[in-house]
Amino acid sequence: MKELTLVVGSKNYSSWSLRPYLALAHTGQPFREVVVQLDKPDTAANITKYSPSGRVPALLHGDLVIWDSLAICEYLAEQFPQAKLWPEASAARAIARSVSAEMHSSFANLRNNMGMNIRASRPGEGRAPGVAEDIARITSLWKECRARFGQGGPFLFGAFSIADAFYAPVVTRFVTYDVELDAVCAAYRDAVLALPALKAWTEAARNEPPVARYEK
Amino acid sequence: MKELTLVVGSKNYSSWSLRPYLALAHTGQPFREVVVQLDKPDTAANITKYSPSGRVPALLHGDLVIWDSLAICEYLAEQFPQAKLWPEASAARAIARSVSAEMHSSFANLRNNMGMNIRASRPGEGRAPGVAEDIARITSLWKECRARFGQGGPFLFGAFSIADAFYAPVVTRFVTYDVELDAVCAAYRDAVLALPALKAWTEAARNEPPVARYEK
Repeated sequence: MKELTLVVGSKNYSSWSLRPYLALAHTGQPFREVVVQLDKPDTAANITKYSPSGRVPALLHGDLVIWDSLAICEYLAEQFPQAKLWPEASAARAIARSVSAEMHSSFANLRNNMGMNIRASRPGEGRAPGVAEDIARITSLWKECRARFGQGGPFLFGAFSIADAFYAPVVTRFVTYDVELDAVCAAYRDAVLALPALKAWTEAARNEPPVARYEK
Repeated sequence: MKELTLVVGSKNYSSWSLRPYLALAHTGQPFREVVVQLDKPDTAANITKYSPSGRVPALLHGDLVIWDSLAICEYLAEQFPQAKLWPEASAARAIARSVSAEMHSSFANLRNNMGMNIRASRPGEGRAPGVAEDIARITSLWKECRARFGQGGPFLFGAFSIADAFYAPVVTRFVTYDVELDAVCAAYRDAVLALPALKAWTEAARNEPPVARYEK
């Protein structure tokens, strides 16, 4: 079988990398991981060794290089259908894709003002204009998914899906910046935090060197 | 059969709406179209009549509302497999999803400085910092796709695919702002411009009222 390699950025900061990592871990497939520390003199050279376009995350499967987080997740869902990375019902899958793709394109205020920094604790910081609106939209999506599709488990669509992988970096931000949540959203946050793959990722993030650009 | 309704924003400006429109037109399925003019006093009310989350574009299929452009395209690809909205080969499909998802999340400099305005002519405008880099990345993706996968037709992956729907708003921007292209990219641009669905969309865009916010 062709080897699977996932190239990711610094785990403490690279929210885009965390998403396909969680999806790939969920498949149970063995894979090689390459972590490229960001913002070092050799970062660009290290990335292009694996990902010709200079992008992380990237999934290498044989000769194929897939360089976008959502495209990687779609590929994994196709290659490993037994992992059920998308909900099985067509309507639930369409909504799961809507919330994942919305996360993929949106929430710039949250991204820019509450950068992912898993090991940091910054309660009360990051409340810039527009951030509250982003948080309101995200928590409203969470509640809608939990209410409509969450019967079979603690995740947005019951069982773990790509949608949870996409919102996992938001979950870690809500912890870092101590964002208050109602009971439904807090329970969802805790279900994501309890994922063994997220715990392993977090443990690795604690041991990485700091990157000045993200620590100011 | 359940009716398909696509809710879109003003055709002259709504780049996000154009994408699923082109994909849906390509399926050949009959569909109802609702155009909501943007930035009017009743815009929000008109959108929520169809799309409870207040988002356009939205695809309504029976009771189901799908509100993200990429999720709509994925749904159409699943519902109408005979339209072959994604390339059939797994590797080509993975790259098509990578370039589409990259368009979905990126190129903020281009988006912000060369807003889609199909009927306008603004040669030389929009050259803000970072725009040239976005254009270089996009044209490099186009050339790579045409070289690797473009043998069977004039589009990025030969036959028309969702990837072309995703880059169609960039094509119209390159016309509006008169962005110079090499022969490969100019031929690709012209193939997109020749799509009957894009011509119909453009014709409708010419007859819409102007929106002040996008005309400054």
